[in-house]
Amino acid sequence: MKKLAQLQAQLQQQNVEVAYLSDPETIQYLTGFGSDPVERVLALVVFPDQEPFLFAPALEVEDIQTSGWQFPVYGYLDHEAPFELLAGHVRDRIANPMRFGIQQQQLTVARLRALQFQFPQAEFSFDLTPTIERMRLIKTPAEIDQLEAAGREADFAFEVAFKTITPGKTEAAVAAEIEYQLKQRGVMEMSFATLVQAGKHASQPHGDTGLTKIQEHELVLLDLGTVHNGYISDASRTVAVGSLDDQLRTIYQVCLDAQLAAQAAVRPGITAAELDQVARDVIDQAGYGEYFIHRLGHGIGMSEHEFPSIMAGNDLQLAENMCFSLEPGIYLPGVAGVRIEDCVRVTATGCEPFTHTTKTLQDVLR
Amino acid sequence: MKKLAQLQAQLQQQNVEVAYLSDPETIQYLTGFGSDPVERVLALVVFPDQEPFLFAPALEVEDIQTSGWQFPVYGYLDHEAPFELLAGHVRDRIANPMRFGIQQQQLTVARLRALQFQFPQAEFSFDLTPTIERMRLIKTPAEIDQLEAAGREADFAFEVAFKTITPGKTEAAVAAEIEYQLKQRGVMEMSFATLVQAGKHASQPHGDTGLTKIQEHELVLLDLGTVHNGYISDASRTVAVGSLDDQLRTIYQVCLDAQLAAQAAVRPGITAAELDQVARDVIDQAGYGEYFIHRLGHGIGMSEHEFPSIMAGNDLQLAENMCFSLEPGIYLPGVAGVRIEDCVRVTATGCEPFTHTTKTLQDVLR
Repeated sequence: MKKLAQLQAQLQQQNVEVAYLSDPETIQYLTGFGSDPVERVLALVVFPDQEPFLFAPALEVEDIQTSGWQFPVYGYLDHEAPFELLAGHVRDRIANPMRFGIQQQQLTVARLRALQFQFPQAEFSFDLTPTIERMRLIKTPAEIDQLEAAGREADFAFEVAFKTITPGKTEAAVAAEIEYQLKQRGVMEMSFATLVQAGKHASQPHGDTGLTKIQEHELVLLDLGTVHNGYISDASRTVAVGSLDDQLRTIYQVCLDAQLAAQAAVRPGITAAELDQVARDVIDQAGYGEYFIHRLGHGIGMSEHEFPSIMAGNDLQLAENMCFSLEPGIYLPGVAGVRIEDCVRVTATGCEPFTHTTKTLQDVLR
Repeated sequence: MKKLAQLQAQLQQQNVEVAYLSDPETIQYLTGFGSDPVERVLALVVFPDQEPFLFAPALEVEDIQTSGWQFPVYGYLDHEAPFELLAGHVRDRIANPMRFGIQQQQLTVARLRALQFQFPQAEFSFDLTPTIERMRLIKTPAEIDQLEAAGREADFAFEVAFKTITPGKTEAAVAAEIEYQLKQRGVMEMSFATLVQAGKHASQPHGDTGLTKIQEHELVLLDLGTVHNGYISDASRTVAVGSLDDQLRTIYQVCLDAQLAAQAAVRPGITAAELDQVARDVIDQAGYGEYFIHRLGHGIGMSEHEFPSIMAGNDLQLAENMCFSLEPGIYLPGVAGVRIEDCVRVTATGCEPFTHTTKTLQDVLR
C-alpha cells in the first residue's frame, strides 16, 4: 500500500480533502483489485489522513474482500442510488468537505454533476490526472517484472503465429490459433483483439482481423499482446509469405531501420519528440514519410493509453524505468502495411525491450 | 441515414445548434461506422439543418470513406490539437454557436473543458443522452435481424460448450474451444470475455474464467455472447456434470422457474420494475432471495449497457421492440452459482427470445 501512502502525501500537499478515483485501472494500480464495472459505479475514495474506502456494486464485494484489500468496502444494490450512499460514507469521515480531487480525463460529465448534486458547496476543479499519471509514469521493479512476463507471452504468441501462417488460411484462423494456444497455457486475456492483416489489407492500420485469405508473396502484419496480472504486452511483427518483390522488401527494411534507430537512441534525457524524430527521419529520407501516419509510440503499463506518448510536440525528457512502445509503420494504400514494434524500458544508459522475437525479415514458408 | 434525420429534427425542436456526439456506439448507431478510438478524439458533429461531419484520427479516414459515410470526414494527426481543429470546422458552418448538445454520460470532464475553452461563450448544459437513449430503446426491423443473427451465434457457442465440458478440463480450455470454433466460422468478436465458471467458483457472479478444473457432480455456469455487425448477443446457461445433489438441483429449478415466469410475464405495458419482481418473487418464495443479488436484466442492442434496465424502481413501461436480458441468478457462496439468461424482444402480445438453446437441465456426461 506504498502507492496509496504516496497519493495521500500528494493530497495533503495540495489541500485536497477527498480524492474521488473512478478509473478502474487507477483503482487496480492503487489497490491491487482489478474489475471492469461497465456502467456501474466503482470508486476508490482516498483522504489525506484517514483510511480510504472502496465503493462497489454488491456483487463485487466478495471479490474485493478476498483480493487483499484491507480497508473498508461498501456495497450497493442495482436499484439503490449510488451517489447518495457514497456521499453518506464520505460524510461519515468529513462532515462538510469543500475540496474534491477528481480524474477529469476519465470522469463523465454526468457523474461529476451527480457528485456536485450531493456536495453543492464543494469545489471539484482539482484534477488528479497529472498526479496519477506522474506516479504511473515510472515503473517499479515489481511492475517491470509483470511487463517482462507479459512480453514473454507475446513472444510465445509470435512463435505460434510464425508456425501457423500458411497461404490459404484466413487472418481469422491465425488469430484464433494464437489465442487458443495462449489460453491453453492459462493466458486468459489479450490486451486487445489479436490483429492479423494480410497483403494490402494491412495498409489500413486500424482495420480488423477478417476473413481475408493469406496469399504467397505477401507481407502479413501481426499486432498482439496479453495481460499478465493487470500488466500488458503489445508488440508487432510483419512476416513474409514466400519471396517478396523489391517494393515490399524495401518498405520492410526502411521500417526496420527506423525501429532499430529509435531503439538505439533511447536513453535518459532524450525527449519523446526527439525520439519520434529519429524514426521519422529514417522513413522520410527513404521517401516514405507520408505513409508513416501515426506517432512512434505510447506508454505501456496497465494499459496502452498511458504516458509517455512518443510523438512530435512532447518535450518530456525520458527517464529510467519509463516504459513505452517503439512502433514505426509504413502503410502503402492498396499495396501493403509494415509495422515493427517492441515495448521497452528505459535503463541507465539505453533501453531493454520486453519482447525478443527476431526482427530480421522471416519467411514463414522456409 | 434516417436516424440522422430523426436526430436533426430533435435538435431543431430543442434549439440545439451543434450536437457533439462522442460515444463510439452512438456514432456507429447513427453512421454505420464502428471504431474504438481508445484515447484519441472521434466525434460526430450534427447540425439541425446542415450536413453533419465526422472528425477522426487520420488513420481512420480511409476506413470511414470506404464505410459508406457520405458526408465530410476531417482527419487530424497525433501531434495536432484536435479540439482547435474541430472548432474550426464547426465555425465554418456556424460562426458563433451558442448552444451545444453533449453526451453527458459519456463525455469526460476534461473534454468538456476543452470544448468550453474553444467556445467560451457557449452553453453546454443540454444533454443528448436521453434523446439518443430514446432512439435506441425501440429496435428497428433491421436491428432485430442483427440481434437474431447474434443470438444464433450464441446458440452455436452453447452447442460447442455442451460437447466440450468434461471433468478434468479447465474453465479456460472450454472458453478457448468456444471462441476458437466461433472464429473458424468467421465470428471474430465476442461481446465480452467468455465466462466459464465451475462449481463453487460460480458463486462469484463477477469472477473470471480461470484455471479451475471442472469436476463431476458440479454445476458449470456459462455466460457468453458475440458481436454481429455491431449488434450483440448475451446469454447464460448452467449445466450439470453428471448427477447432482438435491441442493444443486433445487437452486437450478428455482432459477429456471424464475426465468420462465419472467419470460412469460413480458408484454407491452408491464413496467421494468414489475417484471423484475416477477422473477424475484419466485426466488424469494423458495427462500433464496438473498442470493439473487443483481437486477433481472439490462437492455441489449449495440451494447449490454443500454435501456431498459429491468430492475426495482424503474417504472418504464415496456413496449414492442424493446430488447433486454432476463437473467435471474442464485449464488450460494462457497457452493455453486446458477444463472439462466435469454435476451428477448417485446412483441405485440409477449416476447420472443434471441437464443433458443434448451433450458431444461442438461447433464453433459449423458
